[in-house]
Amino acid sequence: MDFRAYIDQATTIALISHISPDGDNLGCLTALAESLRQLEKDVSAICLDEIPYNLNFLYGIDKLSKEWEKDFDLLITLDSSSLDRFGPGQDIVNKAKYKINIDHHISNNLDFDLNIVKSDYSSTGEVLYELIKDYNLPMDVNIAESIFTAISSDTGSFKYDTCTPRTFKIAADLLELGIDQNKINTNLYSKNSLEKVKILSIILNRLVIDKKRAFAYSYILKNDLKKLGAVESDADGSVEFIRDIDGVEVAMVLKEIDHGFKGSLRSKNDKNVAELAQKFSGGGHVKAAGFTILENNLDKAIEEILNNYD
Amino acid sequence: MDFRAYIDQATTIALISHISPDGDNLGCLTALAESLRQLEKDVSAICLDEIPYNLNFLYGIDKLSKEWEKDFDLLITLDSSSLDRFGPGQDIVNKAKYKINIDHHISNNLDFDLNIVKSDYSSTGEVLYELIKDYNLPMDVNIAESIFTAISSDTGSFKYDTCTPRTFKIAADLLELGIDQNKINTNLYSKNSLEKVKILSIILNRLVIDKKRAFAYSYILKNDLKKLGAVESDADGSVEFIRDIDGVEVAMVLKEIDHGFKGSLRSKNDKNVAELAQKFSGGGHVKAAGFTILENNLDKAIEEILNNYD
Repeated sequence: MDFRAYIDQATTIALISHISPDGDNLGCLTALAESLRQLEKDVSAICLDEIPYNLNFLYGIDKLSKEWEKDFDLLITLDSSSLDRFGPGQDIVNKAKYKINIDHHISNNLDFDLNIVKSDYSSTGEVLYELIKDYNLPMDVNIAESIFTAISSDTGSFKYDTCTPRTFKIAADLLELGIDQNKINTNLYSKNSLEKVKILSIILNRLVIDKKRAFAYSYILKNDLKKLGAVESDADGSVEFIRDIDGVEVAMVLKEIDHGFKGSLRSKNDKNVAELAQKFSGGGHVKAAGFTILENNLDKAIEEILNNYD
Repeated sequence: MDFRAYIDQATTIALISHISPDGDNLGCLTALAESLRQLEKDVSAICLDEIPYNLNFLYGIDKLSKEWEKDFDLLITLDSSSLDRFGPGQDIVNKAKYKINIDHHISNNLDFDLNIVKSDYSSTGEVLYELIKDYNLPMDVNIAESIFTAISSDTGSFKYDTCTPRTFKIAADLLELGIDQNKINTNLYSKNSLEKVKILSIILNRLVIDKKRAFAYSYILKNDLKKLGAVESDADGSVEFIRDIDGVEVAMVLKEIDHGFKGSLRSKNDKNVAELAQKFSGGGHVKAAGFTILENNLDKAIEEILNNYD
């Protein structure tokens, strides 16, 4: 069966986010959910985690559910590269009759009935756009805004060199559909919450630069978040901010979690940060990767990371 | 004569920047200069001001001259909307045999032999790309990189709603020519100095939000700059950063000077900050204004400003 045939045979379809969902993930989820609803499918769009406040503008985001109870004829995952990305949602993944995996991560290791993984695409949004077009699924301005959000989020507004002529052509197509760029860009890029800004300030204040390696790193603790009434995702963006410092090649931000730290890595040029992440069973791309280190002591965690930094 | 005919009749061609040149201006200048050189024209590319350090990567930027002495068969201006934008370069404008004005500013009031002003274009780069293509002028990867730089600079990397499907299609065409996106974007967007970042951190750390007025303010002292080896201009950009916080309508950053404080004001929407600046003999526009307050005591200075805030 091809992508369209799997959809056509299904009555109930579940779309599931990954944990800590981002713009590419929720942009794709809302886009495909709306498209499938227009096909009169019984769609359950499941979000396994808090919705970042700057993605609340997405059409259909209010239909996302945090609960599930049904078995589904078809499950479609978007932008999720491995089973552990589904956290508590793994039972849905196990129970679905058919499963489709749509992604752009080179590290994707899901083995579903259909795996549409295009690692030379900038974003899952780009993969999804082509699927919707190629398989004649419904498309309208709301779906287009969700897909533009997905692509823009995952390319830092068309700044990453994962962008290809195709990426820009798709953006042109989406604009032709009448999307409100100002709404999307204001939400994505001019809505820094005060908590986010305060966390950035703390992270910058603790910045350490290893000049020899052009490696800059910092951290945020659970207690910092608590004091500010902030959530973990409020630290998003800070690692890119550090990467963008002149002379920095690799940036890392560690976020304290229950049993250690979650690390986000960003590379400016050629250094492959996925390799470092893999040493801690993490993954990602050359220029953006993540991992978890099960070490509660900050100094020890940093030492271990530095020892594994080639 | 059309655009190409003016070029064909000319042996000596001058291209001139505006004062305080930016990415759109110098991107277009280097692009057209290289294209015309490939036609074996005697090209003088004149830059009237300092070249911003993050544009030094542009191909042919080293051929820009700060001196001029010749009369020219043809002068082409790019991204300049009025005569006063040429500052000391106005003598070249007066002496040239023929003059062409290429721009995208709606306020353009130059009256040259040929005026190619497209106010619905995102950037002069976009106008120039079409001219090069329509009139069959030489194009290569270096020229494409300059034009991409021009367009990206003037759209905040494709974020402003001056972008149209055409803008994205042109970007796709430029990528097809093999441009190095990473080089361009690193230079344009990833060259924050460490001093700048540290100062931002201090300013954010001191941020006060007057919720009733949606007024957020902070300050930087001479001593902060001294400790960091920073200069006053390293605080540039911080007031815009504060303005972009969710819920903030007006942002202010005070910088300590010898006899008091220099204030920078930014407004997100309708509040006219020039009115506040004028109360301290300052000035500016609705959304961006500045003033100086001759009061050395920070608390008293802030109190006086708050007392004058309507």
